[in-house]
Amino acid sequence: MATLTHIPRRGLLFVMSSPSGAGKTTLSRKLLAADRNITMSVSVTTRKPRPGEVDGKDYHFITPETFDEMVKQKQLLEWATVFGNSYGTPRAPVEEALEQGRDVLFDIDWQGTQQLAQNMKDDLVRLFILPPTADTLRERLIKRAQDSSSVIAKRMAEANHEISHWPEYDYIIVNDDVEESHRMVMAILTAERLRRHRQLGLTDFVRNLTKKL
Amino acid sequence: MATLTHIPRRGLLFVMSSPSGAGKTTLSRKLLAADRNITMSVSVTTRKPRPGEVDGKDYHFITPETFDEMVKQKQLLEWATVFGNSYGTPRAPVEEALEQGRDVLFDIDWQGTQQLAQNMKDDLVRLFILPPTADTLRERLIKRAQDSSSVIAKRMAEANHEISHWPEYDYIIVNDDVEESHRMVMAILTAERLRRHRQLGLTDFVRNLTKKL
Repeated sequence: MATLTHIPRRGLLFVMSSPSGAGKTTLSRKLLAADRNITMSVSVTTRKPRPGEVDGKDYHFITPETFDEMVKQKQLLEWATVFGNSYGTPRAPVEEALEQGRDVLFDIDWQGTQQLAQNMKDDLVRLFILPPTADTLRERLIKRAQDSSSVIAKRMAEANHEISHWPEYDYIIVNDDVEESHRMVMAILTAERLRRHRQLGLTDFVRNLTKKL
Repeated sequence: MATLTHIPRRGLLFVMSSPSGAGKTTLSRKLLAADRNITMSVSVTTRKPRPGEVDGKDYHFITPETFDEMVKQKQLLEWATVFGNSYGTPRAPVEEALEQGRDVLFDIDWQGTQQLAQNMKDDLVRLFILPPTADTLRERLIKRAQDSSSVIAKRMAEANHEISHWPEYDYIIVNDDVEESHRMVMAILTAERLRRHRQLGLTDFVRNLTKKL
Protein backbone atom coordinates (compact mmCIF):
# COMPACT_ATOMS: atom_id res chain seq x y z
CA MET A 1 0.00 0.00 0.00
CA ALA A 2 1.28 3.44 -0.85
CA THR A 3 1.65 6.13 1.78
CA LEU A 4 -1.72 7.65 2.62
CA THR A 5 -2.45 11.16 1.45
CA HIS A 6 -1.81 13.64 4.23
CA ILE A 7 -4.32 16.49 4.41
CA PRO A 8 -3.26 19.12 6.97
CA ARG A 9 -6.09 19.65 9.44
CA ARG A 10 -7.01 21.70 12.46
CA GLY A 11 -7.06 19.80 15.77
CA LEU A 12 -10.18 19.41 17.86
CA LEU A 13 -11.14 19.70 21.53
CA PHE A 14 -12.68 16.51 22.81
CA VAL A 15 -14.70 16.96 26.00
CA MET A 16 -15.80 13.94 28.01
CA SER A 17 -18.17 14.68 30.87
CA SER A 18 -20.10 12.32 33.10
CA PRO A 19 -21.23 11.90 36.67
CA SER A 20 -18.51 10.50 38.90
CA GLY A 21 -18.72 6.71 38.73
CA ALA A 22 -19.94 6.39 35.12
CA GLY A 23 -16.54 5.18 33.84
CA LYS A 24 -15.19 8.36 32.29
CA THR A 25 -11.69 8.05 33.78
CA THR A 26 -11.27 4.52 32.39
CA LEU A 27 -12.48 5.62 28.96
CA SER A 28 -10.13 8.65 28.96
CA ARG A 29 -7.15 6.45 29.79
CA LYS A 30 -8.03 3.95 27.08
CA LEU A 31 -8.42 6.75 24.54
CA LEU A 32 -5.03 8.29 25.43
CA ALA A 33 -3.39 4.85 25.22
CA ALA A 34 -5.01 4.03 21.85
CA ASP A 35 -4.33 7.27 19.99
CA ARG A 36 -1.06 9.16 19.83
CA ASN A 37 -2.45 12.37 18.38
CA ILE A 38 -4.58 13.32 21.38
CA THR A 39 -3.23 14.50 24.73
CA MET A 40 -4.88 15.48 27.98
CA SER A 41 -5.17 19.17 28.68
CA VAL A 42 -3.05 20.17 31.71
CA SER A 43 -4.88 22.62 33.98
CA VAL A 44 -3.47 25.35 36.16
CA THR A 45 -4.46 25.26 39.83
CA THR A 46 -3.89 27.29 42.97
CA ARG A 47 -4.09 24.28 45.26
CA LYS A 48 -0.96 22.70 46.76
CA PRO A 49 0.51 19.61 45.05
CA ARG A 50 -0.45 16.30 46.66
CA PRO A 51 2.26 13.68 47.26
CA GLY A 52 3.36 12.23 43.92
CA GLU A 53 1.84 14.96 41.76
CA VAL A 54 4.21 16.40 39.17
CA ASP A 55 4.18 20.08 38.21
CA GLY A 56 3.51 20.45 34.47
CA LYS A 57 2.15 16.92 34.19
CA ASP A 58 -0.75 16.59 36.63
CA TYR A 59 -1.24 20.35 36.94
CA HIS A 60 0.63 23.57 36.57
CA PHE A 61 0.76 24.72 40.20
CA ILE A 62 0.51 28.51 40.35
CA THR A 63 -0.15 31.23 42.93
CA PRO A 64 -3.58 32.82 43.39
CA GLU A 65 -2.06 36.09 42.13
CA THR A 66 -0.91 34.49 38.88
CA PHE A 67 -4.30 32.82 38.50
CA ASP A 68 -6.16 36.11 38.93
CA GLU A 69 -3.87 37.74 36.41
CA MET A 70 -4.55 34.94 33.87
CA VAL A 71 -8.30 35.39 34.34
CA LYS A 72 -7.96 39.15 33.88
CA GLN A 73 -5.85 38.73 30.72
CA LYS A 74 -8.38 36.20 29.32
CA GLN A 75 -5.69 33.53 29.21
CA LEU A 76 -8.03 30.83 30.57
CA LEU A 77 -10.58 29.10 28.34
CA GLU A 78 -12.58 27.95 31.33
CA TRP A 79 -12.10 28.13 35.08
CA ALA A 80 -13.83 27.48 38.39
CA THR A 81 -13.20 27.81 42.10
CA VAL A 82 -14.04 24.77 44.26
CA PHE A 83 -13.64 24.81 48.05
CA GLY A 84 -11.34 27.84 47.84
CA ASN A 85 -9.04 26.33 45.18
CA SER A 86 -9.11 27.59 41.61
CA TYR A 87 -8.65 25.49 38.48
CA GLY A 88 -8.46 26.56 34.84
CA THR A 89 -7.44 25.64 31.29
CA PRO A 90 -4.72 27.88 29.80
CA ARG A 91 -5.54 29.09 26.33
CA ALA A 92 -2.07 29.24 24.73
CA PRO A 93 -1.16 25.51 24.63
CA VAL A 94 -4.66 24.66 23.36
CA GLU A 95 -4.44 27.17 20.50
CA GLU A 96 -0.98 25.85 19.63
CA ALA A 97 -2.21 22.24 19.56
CA LEU A 98 -5.17 23.10 17.32
CA GLU A 99 -2.96 24.94 14.84
CA GLN A 100 -0.56 21.99 14.69
CA GLY A 101 -3.38 19.51 14.04
CA ARG A 102 -3.16 17.89 17.47
CA ASP A 103 -6.27 17.07 19.50
CA VAL A 104 -6.81 17.85 23.16
CA LEU A 105 -8.85 15.81 25.64
CA PHE A 106 -10.77 17.52 28.45
CA ASP A 107 -12.10 15.81 31.54
CA ILE A 108 -14.36 18.62 32.74
CA ASP A 109 -17.90 19.07 34.04
CA TRP A 110 -20.87 20.79 32.45
CA GLN A 111 -19.83 24.22 33.72
CA GLY A 112 -16.37 23.99 32.16
CA THR A 113 -17.93 22.66 28.96
CA GLN A 114 -20.29 25.64 28.74
CA GLN A 115 -17.39 28.09 29.11
CA LEU A 116 -15.33 26.21 26.52
CA ALA A 117 -18.29 26.29 24.12
CA GLN A 118 -18.45 30.08 24.42
CA ASN A 119 -14.80 30.40 23.41
CA MET A 120 -14.15 27.52 21.00
CA LYS A 121 -17.50 26.34 19.57
CA ASP A 122 -16.26 25.16 16.14
CA ASP A 123 -13.38 23.16 17.59
CA LEU A 124 -15.43 21.44 20.25
CA VAL A 125 -16.72 17.87 20.33
CA ARG A 126 -18.79 17.20 23.44
CA LEU A 127 -19.41 13.67 24.69
CA PHE A 128 -21.49 12.78 27.72
CA ILE A 129 -21.18 9.34 29.34
CA LEU A 130 -24.21 7.91 31.12
CA PRO A 131 -24.27 4.89 33.44
CA PRO A 132 -26.60 2.09 32.25
CA THR A 133 -28.50 1.99 35.58
CA ALA A 134 -28.71 3.84 38.87
CA ASP A 135 -27.50 0.69 40.65
CA THR A 136 -24.30 0.57 38.57
CA LEU A 137 -23.52 4.14 39.54
CA ARG A 138 -24.28 3.53 43.22
CA GLU A 139 -22.12 0.38 43.32
CA ARG A 140 -19.18 2.17 41.74
CA LEU A 141 -19.44 5.10 44.13
CA ILE A 142 -19.68 2.80 47.16
CA LYS A 143 -16.77 0.65 45.97
CA ARG A 144 -14.64 3.71 45.38
CA ALA A 145 -15.52 5.74 48.41
CA GLN A 146 -15.86 3.48 51.44
CA ASP A 147 -17.42 6.55 52.93
CA SER A 148 -20.36 7.11 55.20
CA SER A 149 -23.77 6.73 53.61
CA SER A 150 -24.34 10.49 53.93
CA VAL A 151 -21.25 11.16 51.78
CA ILE A 152 -22.51 8.65 49.22
CA ALA A 153 -25.95 10.26 49.23
CA LYS A 154 -24.30 13.63 48.57
CA ARG A 155 -22.35 12.15 45.64
CA MET A 156 -25.52 10.67 44.20
CA ALA A 157 -27.17 14.10 44.37
CA GLU A 158 -24.17 15.61 42.57
CA ALA A 159 -24.36 12.86 39.94
CA ASN A 160 -28.02 13.67 39.47
CA HIS A 161 -27.23 17.31 38.86
CA GLU A 162 -24.38 16.56 36.44
CA ILE A 163 -26.64 14.16 34.49
CA SER A 164 -29.32 16.85 34.13
CA HIS A 165 -26.98 18.65 31.71
CA TRP A 166 -26.84 15.80 29.14
CA PRO A 167 -28.88 17.78 26.58
CA GLU A 168 -25.96 20.22 26.18
CA TYR A 169 -23.71 17.57 24.58
CA ASP A 170 -23.23 16.49 20.94
CA TYR A 171 -22.87 12.76 21.57
CA ILE A 172 -24.20 10.46 24.28
CA ILE A 173 -22.83 7.03 25.18
CA VAL A 174 -24.55 4.75 27.66
CA ASN A 175 -21.58 2.94 29.17
CA ASP A 176 -22.86 -0.64 29.45
CA ASP A 177 -19.61 -2.28 28.47
CA VAL A 178 -16.27 -0.50 28.61
CA GLU A 179 -14.80 -2.16 25.48
CA GLU A 180 -17.87 -1.37 23.43
CA SER A 181 -17.91 2.21 24.76
CA HIS A 182 -14.22 2.57 23.93
CA ARG A 183 -14.92 1.58 20.33
CA MET A 184 -17.67 4.20 20.23
CA VAL A 185 -15.32 6.89 21.60
CA MET A 186 -12.72 6.00 18.94
CA ALA A 187 -15.40 6.13 16.21
CA ILE A 188 -16.45 9.63 17.30
CA LEU A 189 -12.83 10.82 17.26
CA THR A 190 -12.19 9.24 13.82
CA ALA A 191 -15.38 10.73 12.37
CA GLU A 192 -14.84 14.22 13.77
CA ARG A 193 -11.34 14.31 12.28
CA LEU A 194 -12.91 13.68 8.86
CA ARG A 195 -15.21 16.70 9.09
CA ARG A 196 -14.73 18.96 6.13
CA HIS A 197 -14.27 22.17 8.09
CA ARG A 198 -11.33 20.71 10.07
CA GLN A 199 -9.47 19.44 6.98
CA LEU A 200 -7.93 22.81 6.17
CA GLY A 201 -5.62 21.35 3.53
CA LEU A 202 -8.49 20.17 1.32
CA THR A 203 -8.75 23.40 -0.64
CA ASP A 204 -5.15 23.07 -1.85
CA PHE A 205 -5.49 19.32 -2.32
CA VAL A 206 -8.57 19.64 -4.55
CA ARG A 207 -7.00 22.51 -6.49
CA ASN A 208 -3.98 20.32 -7.34
CA LEU A 209 -6.18 17.32 -8.09
CA THR A 210 -8.50 19.08 -10.52
CA LYS A 211 -5.63 20.94 -12.25
CA LYS A 212 -4.54 17.53 -13.56
CA LEU A 213 -7.98 16.32 -14.67
CA MET B 1 -21.77 -9.29 29.61
CA ALA B 2 -25.32 -8.15 30.14
CA THR B 3 -27.55 -7.12 27.26
CA LEU B 4 -26.72 -3.61 26.10
CA THR B 5 -29.14 -0.83 26.92
CA HIS B 6 -31.38 -0.13 23.95
CA ILE B 7 -32.15 3.56 23.40
CA PRO B 8 -34.78 4.03 20.65
CA ARG B 9 -33.40 6.37 18.02
CA ARG B 10 -34.38 8.05 14.77
CA GLY B 11 -32.66 6.68 11.67
CA LEU B 12 -30.40 8.77 9.47
CA LEU B 13 -29.89 9.36 5.75
CA PHE B 14 -26.34 8.61 4.69
CA VAL B 15 -25.37 10.20 1.39
CA MET B 16 -22.19 9.12 -0.39
CA SER B 17 -21.22 11.20 -3.40
CA SER B 18 -18.10 11.17 -5.51
CA PRO B 19 -16.92 11.50 -9.06
CA SER B 20 -17.32 8.30 -11.02
CA GLY B 21 -14.17 6.22 -10.52
CA ALA B 22 -13.34 7.33 -6.95
CA GLY B 23 -14.45 4.03 -5.43
CA LYS B 24 -17.89 4.96 -4.11
CA THR B 25 -19.66 1.83 -5.41
CA THR B 26 -17.15 -0.46 -3.69
CA LEU B 27 -17.46 1.47 -0.43
CA SER B 28 -21.30 1.37 -0.61
CA ARG B 29 -21.25 -2.40 -1.11
CA LYS B 30 -18.85 -2.93 1.78
CA LEU B 31 -20.99 -0.74 4.03
CA LEU B 32 -24.20 -2.62 3.16
CA ALA B 33 -22.42 -5.95 3.75
CA ALA B 34 -20.96 -4.83 7.10
CA ASP B 35 -24.05 -3.29 8.69
CA ARG B 36 -27.53 -4.78 8.85
CA ASN B 37 -29.33 -1.63 9.93
CA ILE B 38 -28.69 0.36 6.76
CA THR B 39 -30.28 -0.32 3.39
CA MET B 40 -29.95 1.28 -0.02
CA SER B 41 -32.71 3.63 -1.06
CA VAL B 42 -34.62 2.28 -4.07
CA SER B 43 -35.37 4.98 -6.63
CA VAL B 44 -38.30 5.28 -8.99
CA THR B 45 -37.47 5.70 -12.67
CA THR B 46 -39.28 6.16 -15.96
CA ARG B 47 -36.64 4.35 -17.98
CA LYS B 48 -37.19 0.77 -19.17
CA PRO B 49 -35.65 -2.10 -17.14
CA ARG B 50 -32.35 -3.42 -18.47
CA PRO B 51 -31.86 -7.20 -18.73
CA GLY B 52 -31.51 -8.66 -15.22
CA GLU B 53 -32.88 -5.61 -13.38
CA VAL B 54 -35.58 -6.43 -10.84
CA ASP B 55 -38.55 -4.13 -10.24
CA GLY B 56 -38.63 -3.07 -6.57
CA LYS B 57 -34.99 -4.04 -6.01
CA ASP B 58 -32.89 -2.13 -8.54
CA TYR B 59 -35.59 0.45 -9.21
CA HIS B 60 -39.31 0.90 -9.06
CA PHE B 61 -40.14 1.14 -12.77
CA ILE B 62 -43.01 3.58 -13.27
CA THR B 63 -44.66 5.50 -16.11
CA PRO B 64 -43.88 9.14 -16.86
CA GLU B 65 -47.47 9.97 -15.83
CA THR B 66 -47.02 8.40 -12.40
CA PHE B 67 -43.67 10.15 -12.04
CA ASP B 68 -45.18 13.55 -12.84
CA GLU B 69 -47.98 12.90 -10.36
CA MET B 70 -45.43 12.01 -7.63
CA VAL B 71 -43.55 15.24 -8.30
CA LYS B 72 -46.77 17.23 -8.15
CA GLN B 73 -47.85 15.58 -4.88
CA LYS B 74 -44.38 16.22 -3.38
CA GLN B 75 -43.86 12.50 -2.91
CA LEU B 76 -40.25 12.67 -4.11
CA LEU B 77 -37.44 13.88 -1.86
CA GLU B 78 -35.17 14.54 -4.83
CA TRP B 79 -35.42 13.93 -8.53
CA ALA B 80 -33.72 14.64 -11.85
CA THR B 81 -34.19 14.01 -15.55
CA VAL B 82 -31.16 12.68 -17.45
CA PHE B 83 -31.25 12.05 -21.23
CA GLY B 84 -35.05 11.99 -21.17
CA ASN B 85 -35.34 9.52 -18.30
CA SER B 86 -36.48 10.64 -14.87
CA TYR B 87 -35.21 9.31 -11.54
CA GLY B 88 -36.35 10.11 -8.01
CA THR B 89 -36.39 9.06 -4.34
CA PRO B 90 -39.88 8.33 -2.94
CA ARG B 91 -40.52 10.02 0.39
CA ALA B 92 -42.79 7.47 2.11
CA PRO B 93 -40.34 4.55 2.59
CA VAL B 94 -37.65 6.96 3.77
CA GLU B 95 -39.92 8.53 6.40
CA GLU B 96 -40.95 5.06 7.54
CA ALA B 97 -37.34 3.89 7.88
CA LEU B 98 -36.37 6.98 9.89
CA GLU B 99 -39.26 6.52 12.30
CA GLN B 100 -38.35 2.86 12.81
CA GLY B 101 -34.72 3.73 13.56
CA ARG B 102 -33.39 2.29 10.32
CA ASP B 103 -30.77 4.10 8.23
CA VAL B 104 -30.91 4.66 4.48
CA LEU B 105 -27.95 4.88 2.11
CA PHE B 106 -28.04 7.17 -0.92
CA ASP B 107 -25.73 6.96 -3.90
CA ILE B 108 -26.58 10.34 -5.46
CA ASP B 109 -24.75 13.30 -6.93
CA TRP B 110 -24.44 16.86 -5.64
CA GLN B 111 -27.76 17.93 -7.16
CA GLY B 112 -29.72 15.17 -5.43
CA THR B 113 -27.86 15.91 -2.21
CA GLN B 114 -28.85 19.58 -2.36
CA GLN B 115 -32.51 18.66 -2.81
CA LEU B 116 -32.37 16.14 0.03
CA ALA B 117 -30.77 18.79 2.26
CA GLN B 118 -33.70 21.12 1.62
CA ASN B 119 -36.18 18.48 2.75
CA MET B 120 -34.37 16.47 5.44
CA LYS B 121 -31.51 18.57 6.82
CA ASP B 122 -31.45 17.20 10.40
CA ASP B 123 -31.50 13.58 9.27
CA LEU B 124 -28.79 13.96 6.67
CA VAL B 125 -25.14 12.87 6.86
CA ARG B 126 -23.24 13.87 3.74
CA LEU B 127 -19.97 12.17 2.78
CA PHE B 128 -17.88 13.03 -0.25
CA ILE B 129 -15.23 10.59 -1.53
CA LEU B 130 -12.19 12.02 -3.31
CA PRO B 131 -9.63 10.08 -5.35
CA PRO B 132 -6.05 10.40 -4.03
CA THR B 133 -4.67 11.56 -7.39
CA ALA B 134 -5.89 12.53 -10.86
CA ASP B 135 -4.00 9.53 -12.27
CA THR B 136 -5.91 7.09 -10.04
CA LEU B 137 -9.19 8.49 -11.31
CA ARG B 138 -8.07 8.40 -14.94
CA GLU B 139 -6.83 4.80 -14.65
CA ARG B 140 -10.10 3.65 -13.08
CA LEU B 141 -12.18 5.38 -15.76
CA ILE B 142 -10.05 3.93 -18.58
CA LYS B 143 -10.12 0.43 -17.04
CA ARG B 144 -13.87 0.58 -16.65
CA ALA B 145 -14.83 2.20 -19.89
CA GLN B 146 -12.72 0.86 -22.73
CA ASP B 147 -14.18 3.80 -24.54
CA SER B 148 -12.74 6.27 -26.98
CA SER B 149 -10.49 8.93 -25.54
CA SER B 150 -13.12 11.58 -26.21
CA VAL B 151 -15.60 9.70 -23.99
CA ILE B 152 -12.96 9.47 -21.28
CA ALA B 153 -12.20 13.17 -21.61
CA LYS B 154 -15.91 13.91 -21.19
CA ARG B 155 -16.03 11.75 -18.05
CA MET B 156 -13.01 13.54 -16.62
CA ALA B 157 -14.76 16.86 -17.18
CA GLU B 158 -17.86 15.53 -15.40
CA ALA B 159 -15.66 14.30 -12.54
CA ASN B 160 -14.14 17.74 -12.31
CA HIS B 161 -17.56 19.31 -11.98
CA GLU B 162 -18.77 16.82 -9.37
CA ILE B 163 -15.59 17.38 -7.32
CA SER B 164 -16.17 21.14 -7.33
CA HIS B 165 -19.11 20.54 -4.97
CA TRP B 166 -17.03 18.97 -2.17
CA PRO B 167 -17.52 22.01 0.12
CA GLU B 168 -21.25 21.13 0.42
CA TYR B 169 -20.52 17.91 2.34
CA ASP B 170 -20.11 17.22 6.09
CA TYR B 171 -17.32 14.66 5.80
CA ILE B 172 -14.56 14.13 3.26
CA ILE B 173 -12.60 10.93 2.73
CA VAL B 174 -9.61 10.73 0.40
CA ASN B 175 -9.88 7.14 -0.81
CA ASP B 176 -6.22 6.03 -0.82
CA ASP B 177 -6.89 2.55 0.44
CA VAL B 178 -10.31 0.91 0.29
CA GLU B 179 -10.00 -0.97 3.62
CA GLU B 180 -8.89 2.16 5.44
CA SER B 181 -11.68 4.16 3.80
CA HIS B 182 -14.22 1.50 4.77
CA ARG B 183 -13.16 1.80 8.42
CA MET B 184 -13.63 5.56 8.15
CA VAL B 185 -17.12 5.14 6.65
CA MET B 186 -18.07 2.78 9.50
CA ALA B 187 -16.71 5.24 12.08
CA ILE B 188 -18.84 8.05 10.63
CA LEU B 189 -21.95 5.86 10.74
CA THR B 190 -21.23 4.72 14.32
CA ALA B 191 -20.58 8.29 15.49
CA GLU B 192 -23.64 9.79 13.81
CA ARG B 193 -25.87 7.17 15.43
CA LEU B 194 -24.58 8.37 18.82
CA ARG B 195 -25.62 11.97 18.22
CA ARG B 196 -27.84 13.19 21.00
CA HIS B 197 -30.60 14.53 18.77
CA ARG B 198 -31.09 11.15 17.07
CA GLN B 199 -31.33 9.19 20.34
CA LEU B 200 -34.98 10.03 20.92
CA GLY B 201 -35.30 7.55 23.79
CA LEU B 202 -32.73 9.35 25.96
CA THR B 203 -35.25 11.64 27.62
CA ASP B 204 -37.19 8.66 29.01
CA PHE B 205 -34.00 6.76 29.80
CA VAL B 206 -32.52 9.63 31.83
CA ARG B 207 -35.84 10.24 33.60
CA ASN B 208 -35.94 6.60 34.76
CA LEU B 209 -32.25 6.65 35.67
CA THR B 210 -32.38 9.76 37.83
CA LYS B 211 -35.64 8.73 39.51
CA LYS B 212 -33.63 5.97 41.18
CA LEU B 213 -30.66 8.11 42.25
